[in-house]
Order: sequence, then C-alpha cells, then structure tokens
Amino acid sequence: MTSVNEDNIMAVVQRLVDERDIERVLFQYAFHLDAADPQSMLPLFVEDLYVAYGPSHGATGAESYLDVLSNDKTGIAAFFAGTSHHVSNIVIDFVNKDTAKVRSVLYAWHKYYRDRPDGIVYAQYHDEFTRTDEGWKISRREQKTAGTENYHAKAHALVPTPRTQKTS
Amino acid sequence: MTSVNEDNIMAVVQRLVDERDIERVLFQYAFHLDAADPQSMLPLFVEDLYVAYGPSHGATGAESYLDVLSNDKTGIAAFFAGTSHHVSNIVIDFVNKDTAKVRSVLYAWHKYYRDRPDGIVYAQYHDEFTRTDEGWKISRREQKTAGTENYHAKAHALVPTPRTQKTS
Amino acid sequence: MTSVNEDNIMAVVQRLVDERDIERVLFQYAFHLDAADPQSMLPLFVEDLYVAYGPSHGATGAESYLDVLSNDKTGIAAFFAGTSHHVSNIVIDFVNKDTAKVRSVLYAWHKYYRDRPDGIVYAQYHDEFTRTDEGWKISRREQKTAGTENYHAKAHALVPTPRTQKTS
Repeated sequence: MTSVNEDNIMAVVQRLVDERDIERVLFQYAFHLDAADPQSMLPLFVEDLYVAYGPSHGATGAESYLDVLSNDKTGIAAFFAGTSHHVSNIVIDFVNKDTAKVRSVLYAWHKYYRDRPDGIVYAQYHDEFTRTDEGWKISRREQKTAGTENYHAKAHALVPTPRTQKTS
Repeated sequence: MTSVNEDNIMAVVQRLVDERDIERVLFQYAFHLDAADPQSMLPLFVEDLYVAYGPSHGATGAESYLDVLSNDKTGIAAFFAGTSHHVSNIVIDFVNKDTAKVRSVLYAWHKYYRDRPDGIVYAQYHDEFTRTDEGWKISRREQKTAGTENYHAKAHALVPTPRTQKTS
Repeated sequence: MTSVNEDNIMAVVQRLVDERDIERVLFQYAFHLDAADPQSMLPLFVEDLYVAYGPSHGATGAESYLDVLSNDKTGIAAFFAGTSHHVSNIVIDFVNKDTAKVRSVLYAWHKYYRDRPDGIVYAQYHDEFTRTDEGWKISRREQKTAGTENYHAKAHALVPTPRTQKTS
C-alpha cells in the first residue's frame, strides 16, 4: 500500500502516468484492430515483438506480424466483416521503471464474411510492455483463451487461461 | 511520453484528475440509462448538447433529448424491460484544458417488453467533453456501431464504425 | 470539480493511488474467480466480509465464503467448466479516507460441466471497501443483476438492479 509523501510523490505520479499510457496502448490496439488497419497497429509494438494467439499461431518480429494481419485471405480485413474488442480488468506490475507485466481481459466479437454465426472469444492478454523513446510499447503478447462461441479457431488451437481443474 | 518533474507535476496531476472525472461521467451515464432514469442522465450533458445514434436518430438540446429518452412509447423505460451498458477502452485527448475528445467502446444488452430475443449492440462512443462550473459534461456524442445481434434498429439506421473495406 | 494546487496535491495523488488500488482488487477477484482459485480470492476480502448474490445466496465471514466457493458440488471449480468475468464502469465514492463505496458493472460468461448452454450474467457489484494494513479490501459486496441468458439461477433468486418501472 503506497502512502504518498513529499519524498515519493514524483515517482508515484510518474507511475500513474505510465499506467494510463500503457492502458491507452491496449485501447488503441483494439481500435485499430476493429478498424482493420494493421499499419496503425504496428507502431504499438516494438520491432522485435513476440505475439502468440495459440501454440502454432502468432508472429515474431514486426514484419512477420504485419504479414499475418494483412494477409489477403486470412488477415483481419479479409477474414472478418467486422469485429469489436472490449478490453477491461487491466492489472499492471512494473518489473522495473522501463518494463511492465500487464494482464487484461478480452471480450471479442467477430462477424465473418463467410455465412456462419458470429464468433465470440473470452480471453486474457498476458503482455510485457517496454518503455521506448516513443512511449510504452508491447514487446510480448500471449493470448490465453477462457472459451469461445462459434469461433472458427477450435480449442486445441488456443492456449487456455490458467484454471484449477475439477478434481472429482 | 510525459516525464514528471517539479515544473509540470501540478498540470500532470490535474490531467489525471480530469481524466477520472470524465470516465466517471461515462459510467454514470450508463448507470442512469440502465436504471431507466432520464432525469439523472441530463445533468451529465451541457444544455446545448448534440447526440446522434444514427443518421436520423438523435437530439439537439437538453429538452429534445429528454423527450427522446422519456417518450411513453419509445423511451428507455417504455421500450426496454432491462438494459446493461458496459463501457471500456476509454481514450481521452485534450484539445485544450477545457475540452476533450473522448472515445470509448460499448457492449450493450437490451431486453424488450415485446416478445423478441434480447438485442446486443457493439459500438463506439465518439464524444466531446466540456469543462463547466459543475464539472466535465458531454457536449457532443456520436455513436458508431460495429454490429448488432437481434437489435430492433437495423444497420441502415446506424452510423458504422470506421473500418477498412475488403478490397477483393 | 477538483482544482489541483500546492495545498491539496498530496491528498489528490493519494486518492488517485487509492482508486487504482481498489480497481486492482476488483480485477484480481475476477482473475482468481476465473482461475477457480478460492484460496487466492479470500485475501481480497476482510475477515468479517458480507457477500450477497441473491436473497438467499451469499456468505458472512471469510470461512463461510470459502466454503461456498470451494464446495465440491456447487463450488466454482466443481460447477463451472470455465468462466470469464469482465468488470468495467467503476465508480468510487470515498465515505472517508479509509472507506469507499464502489459500484461496477459485470459481464460474466459461464460454461457448465453439465450439458446445457453457456450462461451469461449482466450485473452490478455494489461494494464497500475498507483500507487495512494490507491494502484495500472488500468488506461488503452485493451483486444486483440486470438480466441473464441461460443462467442456472433464476430471476427470483437474484437481487435486481435499480430500475424505473414501466408506468403504462
């Protein structure tokens, strides 16, 4: 529990500002994703990013990620007729003043071009953020999925959220 | 990227307080809307408000908006048996110290009095906030809709969210 | 409306820090609940907690609550195959510097072990938080429910959210 005083106020306010800056990156990611605009998503990540949506689905490095997002068959503008990403429950832990572990919860709606029901994803982002000269950026993102409804990717293609298993 | 120091700390903290005050208005709006209580919603807006939910659905001025919300056939208490508005992804950009552009994402559930399935709306609020003597208020709100499920208003009656179009 | 100045800045920053600490408790609660990990949920509450999910469903005291959460038939790990709790719209009102009323909005998805459709809950948490030596904790939580879809608990078993009734 932080008690604010004259000695720590500068550092405390810097942390509050950093936390808002980090949250903003999460929200800009969702906005540009829902706008099907990969070019605007990339500056939110460091160049040597690592992104994993499943055991065999993700990207290493900005160029590779842009290819995944922009693919003319499976990219976000080609595959989905519309999406809406709702990010909440943001928990930020600073590892040091320039690195933070950030966990958030995602509700994502997907409308397909193909004739099939809209897909829903319930997931968590487990991110690492890095402070750069251009502000906080995502250096590592792992999506863990709690469940889906009518989503095209099946459970075995996704990393599950941590959960105690039923014992009986 | 803001670096907090002795010269800017007062302004930085004021901005953090303003941001929380603005967020609170968004949340109080949702609360009073879900309580079907238009009288409590109006003080969250300036008198000469502009609100648009679609090309031909909205209001200019507090009196007109109150009429829309309170209509005994199509108003929120008469039309919906229940609603739940979930607002997240809030991005705030100050135009100057008394004006801010505010974008947020909405998940809205609607239960009808009529016998029909519950309606879901995935949308964005594109707002302008103004600082008044009574605190931050919404001066302009445009709702842009990413998609709906079983919602009574059809797509052509809604303003779409910005999105790159499929090119092939 | 708070105007930050040299006299109040320390108190204002303390409040901002307290607000983030309180939000973090809400998010950790959801995370440990979705992880089906009652042992990690309990430290988020004071020992003499009061929790009510419905007129006859809840707990008084940490031991009783742990029993409810851990029950080998109806507890969270036994009853649900997966859950995802999305908490937003957080409004915090400090009663005094060590007590706060906190209201938030919940979207909760539940996958059952039993063969039945996933259940959705739209609700509000009406909480009281208390500052302790170990940080802010939940002392009282009342869940009020706006509506459900395919949820196992029926409306009469839930406390409704406040809402103006249709008059005609």
